[in-house]
Amino acid sequence: MNGAQALIGTLVSGGVEVCFTNPGTSEMHFVAALDSVPEMRPVLGLFEGVVTGAADGYGRMADKAAATLLHLGPGLGNGIANLHNARRAHTPIVNIVGDHATGHRRYDPPLTSDIESLARPVSRWFAQPDSPRSLVASAAEAVVGAYGPPGGVATLVVAADLSWDPSPGPAVVDAIPMPRPVGDEVLVAAAKALRSGEPTALLVGGGAVRGARGLVAASRIAGATGAKLLCETFPARIERGAGLPAVERLGYFAEFVQAQLENVRHLVLAGATAPVSFFAYPNMPGYLVPEDCELHVLAAEADDAPGALEALADALGAPPHSATPQAPGRPDRPTGALTAQTMAAAIGALLPEGAVVSDEGNTAGIFVAGATAGAPRHDWMCLTGGAIGQGLPLATGAAVAVPDAKVLALEADGSAMYTLQALWTQAREGLDVTTVIVNNGSYAILEIELSRVGASDAGPRAHDMLDITRPDLDFVSLASGMGVPASRAQTAEEFTEQLERAIEEPGPALVEAVLR
Amino acid sequence: MNGAQALIGTLVSGGVEVCFTNPGTSEMHFVAALDSVPEMRPVLGLFEGVVTGAADGYGRMADKAAATLLHLGPGLGNGIANLHNARRAHTPIVNIVGDHATGHRRYDPPLTSDIESLARPVSRWFAQPDSPRSLVASAAEAVVGAYGPPGGVATLVVAADLSWDPSPGPAVVDAIPMPRPVGDEVLVAAAKALRSGEPTALLVGGGAVRGARGLVAASRIAGATGAKLLCETFPARIERGAGLPAVERLGYFAEFVQAQLENVRHLVLAGATAPVSFFAYPNMPGYLVPEDCELHVLAAEADDAPGALEALADALGAPPHSATPQAPGRPDRPTGALTAQTMAAAIGALLPEGAVVSDEGNTAGIFVAGATAGAPRHDWMCLTGGAIGQGLPLATGAAVAVPDAKVLALEADGSAMYTLQALWTQAREGLDVTTVIVNNGSYAILEIELSRVGASDAGPRAHDMLDITRPDLDFVSLASGMGVPASRAQTAEEFTEQLERAIEEPGPALVEAVLR
Repeated sequence: MNGAQALIGTLVSGGVEVCFTNPGTSEMHFVAALDSVPEMRPVLGLFEGVVTGAADGYGRMADKAAATLLHLGPGLGNGIANLHNARRAHTPIVNIVGDHATGHRRYDPPLTSDIESLARPVSRWFAQPDSPRSLVASAAEAVVGAYGPPGGVATLVVAADLSWDPSPGPAVVDAIPMPRPVGDEVLVAAAKALRSGEPTALLVGGGAVRGARGLVAASRIAGATGAKLLCETFPARIERGAGLPAVERLGYFAEFVQAQLENVRHLVLAGATAPVSFFAYPNMPGYLVPEDCELHVLAAEADDAPGALEALADALGAPPHSATPQAPGRPDRPTGALTAQTMAAAIGALLPEGAVVSDEGNTAGIFVAGATAGAPRHDWMCLTGGAIGQGLPLATGAAVAVPDAKVLALEADGSAMYTLQALWTQAREGLDVTTVIVNNGSYAILEIELSRVGASDAGPRAHDMLDITRPDLDFVSLASGMGVPASRAQTAEEFTEQLERAIEEPGPALVEAVLR
Repeated sequence: MNGAQALIGTLVSGGVEVCFTNPGTSEMHFVAALDSVPEMRPVLGLFEGVVTGAADGYGRMADKAAATLLHLGPGLGNGIANLHNARRAHTPIVNIVGDHATGHRRYDPPLTSDIESLARPVSRWFAQPDSPRSLVASAAEAVVGAYGPPGGVATLVVAADLSWDPSPGPAVVDAIPMPRPVGDEVLVAAAKALRSGEPTALLVGGGAVRGARGLVAASRIAGATGAKLLCETFPARIERGAGLPAVERLGYFAEFVQAQLENVRHLVLAGATAPVSFFAYPNMPGYLVPEDCELHVLAAEADDAPGALEALADALGAPPHSATPQAPGRPDRPTGALTAQTMAAAIGALLPEGAVVSDEGNTAGIFVAGATAGAPRHDWMCLTGGAIGQGLPLATGAAVAVPDAKVLALEADGSAMYTLQALWTQAREGLDVTTVIVNNGSYAILEIELSRVGASDAGPRAHDMLDITRPDLDFVSLASGMGVPASRAQTAEEFTEQLERAIEEPGPALVEAVLR
């Protein structure tokens, strides 16, 4: 048995059963070993940002780690943006980066770079083993390291010779650590704040909004105490829809968050951090908790947030079945012009039960959350780290994780062009992903931000930098070129029909929604 | 005047007149300032790898630095692979990375990451100024820092508030440093080796092969001494063609290099480093200089290699006009099947004078160098750092640098898919680039490497990871989707006709050469 076979064997024994790959020469033994460890499913991406974003989407939906396989420092570089998003989502990923053989690095051949320096900013765990024995030991630790808590990216640098040298065999992976239960004193403090009679808000996020448990408990707490129930701006994954408690998400722009938190004197955090502005703006605060508001951390990122919320709801005497469910309801099928509103209505009218939405619709997707609030239960994944190019890879990995679900990628034109290669992997693997590209011909969010940052001197050259219509991007051609059937919609009726067909038929499809 | 205006003013005063951009919110003041400093030409890319690769191509052909504009750590991450190639090419680049406002970073908003850790591995110079005054001072230093010698990436992190705050105005850029002349003792030692009567080789690269001066002097030396004249495997830019001395490039595979250097007892280096294997292989040496061969560094990377070669040629008494020119000659227009050979013949038959070739053809391009050896004079740019996805961005930047030249991007299908978005920038800017995509449906180099690394256990799953025909990539659709006219050739005649038309017509065009 060589090192690569033992490495994959170790991963599989730790429950890592999918590897998103974009390999090069130094990873060839890992690739060859895939034939001798059939429990590991390899999924090829044409670009590393697809690989890392897919591993993130897989981890968010499977609630377990996938592996990646990247080629030295530059391959890792191409994957950093989506590893950054995964880091912010606390997604467990075993991030494998191949490197030159241990004796070869000293010659500084062309592909050599400082992999550790590149990896550290996105990794919660890092190792660069130097022997066949430490390779498998490190691989076992990487699996555990990826789960945290909180979860994150565990980067394992694998020198080529450690893959081809004989190995002592797979290592045993320790038990996966679980989120920590919170202490009684924390519960008492949170309960006291919620009973204070002063305006209080409960801000949930992270593990608290994954599945029904945390949401139901949070709704019971809000019902029993009158606290305002809020959710972080960009949850990694939130379950929502008819029958589940609805939560109001914090706004993206600082002034919206300020309005949402106005007069709040106690802010109880469960799986979320204190709200800050996404960007700074001249003469605007960056920290958005009101000055006279007291913070109470019920569950930090490493804690069992659903458990803490249930314990708190019980401590507050909130009746077990007192959560407020979202009433079912869908918009009518829209007619007329295709706008952000009618597009949202069509999605709300058609979103199937159990769907998984990868939301990178940005400005154009603003009405979709409202239009789908009463749709059948579904999962929603957001742009956790703000690094665009997440949406299509995330949808790809989610579809690998939950093959029976319909995945809907809601994607802006500008963002789509960072990692469009994900479509090819969807076609190759026959993944059940419907992609909606909102084509407004613009980095529209930047047109808004340009004025918000006070750049009043912006003239035609500046606006030209935010205009992507010269030439127009034709997403039907682009998708066809990668084997994904596609169509273009210019009216609400066309969009509704095309979306319906894409949802009904299994496998990947793309609908370009022209919003001009 | 705000900081962004002063920053751009500083760059322009230092001769930096093109900025390849992919901005976000934190860069909006820089974007707005483009209207008030018209001397700076902004060129938009849809992806950061396009931006950094274009800056590399521009720098290689303009022999001066362009700026980039990237969005925080993740934007930098997307640009790292091509910054790695630029670092290996010693291309001067002022790499501007926007960041959160100085007071905002402490809140750790979603896009925050350790930019310095990400930037250091690709940067020869780095600064993160913290005041309006240090911003412009650092910008002036960045321009100087980018030129070295040797040149490289100077990364300047610009906090958003330094762009919007009032500035004292542009800083003065010091004189650009020039490559260093080499000392007499170095010339004497090299001359002694070349006169030793023992088998000697002169290995040129870097600045020694840029333009005719170094090549002519090297050829004179070889003629006068009988030394074997060799060129590094992947020069950043080499001028070649009829009338210029031809140099034999070192092979890619270690065993070829071993054969080329067999029995050599003295290796004189001018602008090149001692040959090492690109990757390590089991039971193969990594360092490729024969054991009993003495190294003589005539000109290191920071030195004036053409000057050193001329001085050495004179010292050796080589007559001024004794260089051996390459005879003119083109292959006939090919007929029959489209193969790597006939494709190369067509390129050799048609390559126009003064063309610039961006070569990322990999295995499929193996015959093109031979077929174009006697073509009219042209420049050739190679994959310096081995990070694939260089070819199309490099061609894009080169076309901005030398608008009167025809740029030919010779690109493999697998590599093309890393940074295909470059085509859109070519269309937007009307750049005169003809792209040839060699579609063999495979990561063909990896099929070779799989056996070379001794992965004899590779089975169907391993080979499937190197097969990109499921589905086939349709580059005609992909190019059309980004506004670049494209056609597909399946015979030698079709390829020749389509290439001829693409070369004749100004502006971007793509020919997909199907080699199966």
